[in-house]
Amino acid sequence: MRRALALAETVLYVTSPNPRVGCVIVRDGVLLAEGATQKAGGPHAEVMALRQARERGIDIAGATVYVSLEPCSHHGRTPPCVDALIEAKPSRVVIAMHDPNPLVGGRGVARLRAAGIDVAIGVLAEESLALNPGFVARMARGTPWLWLKLAASLDGRIALSNGQSQWITGSAARADGHHWRARSCVVLTGSGTVLADDPHLGVREVSTPRQPVKAVVDTRFEVNEQARLFDGSRVWIFTCTHNAEKAARLADRNALVVELPDSGGRVDLAAMMRWMGAHDINEIHVEAGSRLSGALLQADCVDELLLYMAPMLVGPGLDMLRLPALQDLAQAWRFAFTDARAIGPDLRLNARHAGRWSALLSAITD
Amino acid sequence: MRRALALAETVLYVTSPNPRVGCVIVRDGVLLAEGATQKAGGPHAEVMALRQARERGIDIAGATVYVSLEPCSHHGRTPPCVDALIEAKPSRVVIAMHDPNPLVGGRGVARLRAAGIDVAIGVLAEESLALNPGFVARMARGTPWLWLKLAASLDGRIALSNGQSQWITGSAARADGHHWRARSCVVLTGSGTVLADDPHLGVREVSTPRQPVKAVVDTRFEVNEQARLFDGSRVWIFTCTHNAEKAARLADRNALVVELPDSGGRVDLAAMMRWMGAHDINEIHVEAGSRLSGALLQADCVDELLLYMAPMLVGPGLDMLRLPALQDLAQAWRFAFTDARAIGPDLRLNARHAGRWSALLSAITD
Repeated sequence: MRRALALAETVLYVTSPNPRVGCVIVRDGVLLAEGATQKAGGPHAEVMALRQARERGIDIAGATVYVSLEPCSHHGRTPPCVDALIEAKPSRVVIAMHDPNPLVGGRGVARLRAAGIDVAIGVLAEESLALNPGFVARMARGTPWLWLKLAASLDGRIALSNGQSQWITGSAARADGHHWRARSCVVLTGSGTVLADDPHLGVREVSTPRQPVKAVVDTRFEVNEQARLFDGSRVWIFTCTHNAEKAARLADRNALVVELPDSGGRVDLAAMMRWMGAHDINEIHVEAGSRLSGALLQADCVDELLLYMAPMLVGPGLDMLRLPALQDLAQAWRFAFTDARAIGPDLRLNARHAGRWSALLSAITD
Repeated sequence: MRRALALAETVLYVTSPNPRVGCVIVRDGVLLAEGATQKAGGPHAEVMALRQARERGIDIAGATVYVSLEPCSHHGRTPPCVDALIEAKPSRVVIAMHDPNPLVGGRGVARLRAAGIDVAIGVLAEESLALNPGFVARMARGTPWLWLKLAASLDGRIALSNGQSQWITGSAARADGHHWRARSCVVLTGSGTVLADDPHLGVREVSTPRQPVKAVVDTRFEVNEQARLFDGSRVWIFTCTHNAEKAARLADRNALVVELPDSGGRVDLAAMMRWMGAHDINEIHVEAGSRLSGALLQADCVDELLLYMAPMLVGPGLDMLRLPALQDLAQAWRFAFTDARAIGPDLRLNARHAGRWSALLSAITD
């Protein structure tokens, strides 16, 4: 299963909106064939592995199949993997996690068992979830998995009081950040950042066959039509302001303007999350200013923190997040650390919202 | 040598103001005897190891001795270890680091070589330094090694705006903090913290044969004579204010009042560091408020950061350090991460001042 998960990881930038899945076929401790899910519309991991076995002239009857997600049992853009597996007659299928779709989860397992195949499920389930939090979140709760990318000094500043922010974290951290952009479906920022910094928001520092959608929260629809992010790639603008002419001009530049309800003088962020979930978005990478980052946290939209910390103290300056003063520490926004590692001279800390992670875990285990 | 360093680590709370040193005697890959330096005035590591060999009836002539610090060649409270080694006739002595005292460094090695013993030096030197940064700092530059213990949220707050600070980090982090108190020679705080929180400052959560001195920076000599820290253990008060009566009363409670020059309306912190260096202090553990912590950083007294980070965001509140606003990031106080690890639900980050660490490393290598 570890190898199946490693295969799934090789397609981290590729399969969206489908999940990253790996499949390994083994008999008597010998690896017969393996595969990973291809880009959307292409073959799933099981089909890739079965195809490789066939190309090698290997009959996998009686073998064991390891697959990191319950095989699909419905006709999507590809035929059901369960049918292909049953036809190939393995004696045993070991699965990391259930299909998180409550309407179909369990059917793949049931059909395999009905065909007389021994099925084990739940092996390294959490590791498989870690490769697919967005897919599972979209299926289980209807909204994407969202992480906030922050880069700060040890004392939590993203810039000096005079605005200087280049550079607190180093080039290795910025390159690592592009890995996270590349795996996401949407890179989200705020209009304030677009107006102030004119970021490109594309994936540049890692090689990827797929660029995420660029998205901007722009309540008053103030974004500059000449901004660098309008480079022909897909852009979504979430706004509360109707301006048909501007929207039409931006449509020519491949930008879609999405009008959403207002919530306290700003785009209703929960509505934005539902809209993105309905539009097949699995993972959202947020790289925004302290205002939007703080608003997302307050709106309970933040599932994970991706925090690059530079080993420096800078004193007074701009905080990572604009938040209201709390009256009690019981009201603090709490996460659980999942990783801490050196990225060049900086540290990268990952922390997840524990309750929301547990909910996803429940959705993919019995 | 790894074993010698592990032995040195077992006496981390014990040997001060002497260095933590381990010694291992080996022949043909067989461990013959070993030892670690005892409390000040007691035997050094080499003597402990030689004594163990004698008790076991083992002649170590021709064996190899691994010792994590150059053997002493002068008469202190104990006779020179070099004499004992020469008498025991090992064929080879492997040493981690030179004696950092510029007046005596190299003499131990020279005397061993003059006696016909093969000597190698510099094996795991940096690891040995990491066990003795304070001893080396005091010898090499005349001042102790100082670390700032901080406990904050991910956004760098040590308390909410209303002052609430219990608890941001958890009980495991607090217990780990006592390990660092226990290895230090002085636990330093400010009078503001004493007046506000009335801390005890003793080592409680780990078992130790030795309590560090408690010290207070108290420019205007405002400390409350009934404060909990005056429990009969040694206390030093650094002040710019003369009050002979109060000093005499506190002397009865085992507190020494040290009058120091004023520097910009506060105790001259550099003078305090020199005073402590002259009084055999190797390591200073600072657990203070944002005012003293910030002043120590500004006075270039901070060699290392010991930062416990809780996985929570709290918004506006009290910063870790009170610092002036910088005009340029080039003025930031920069460190280099040396460790990041989970301590219960929190993270502990260690970071050192790179230049000052390099200076110590130069003092103990050729």
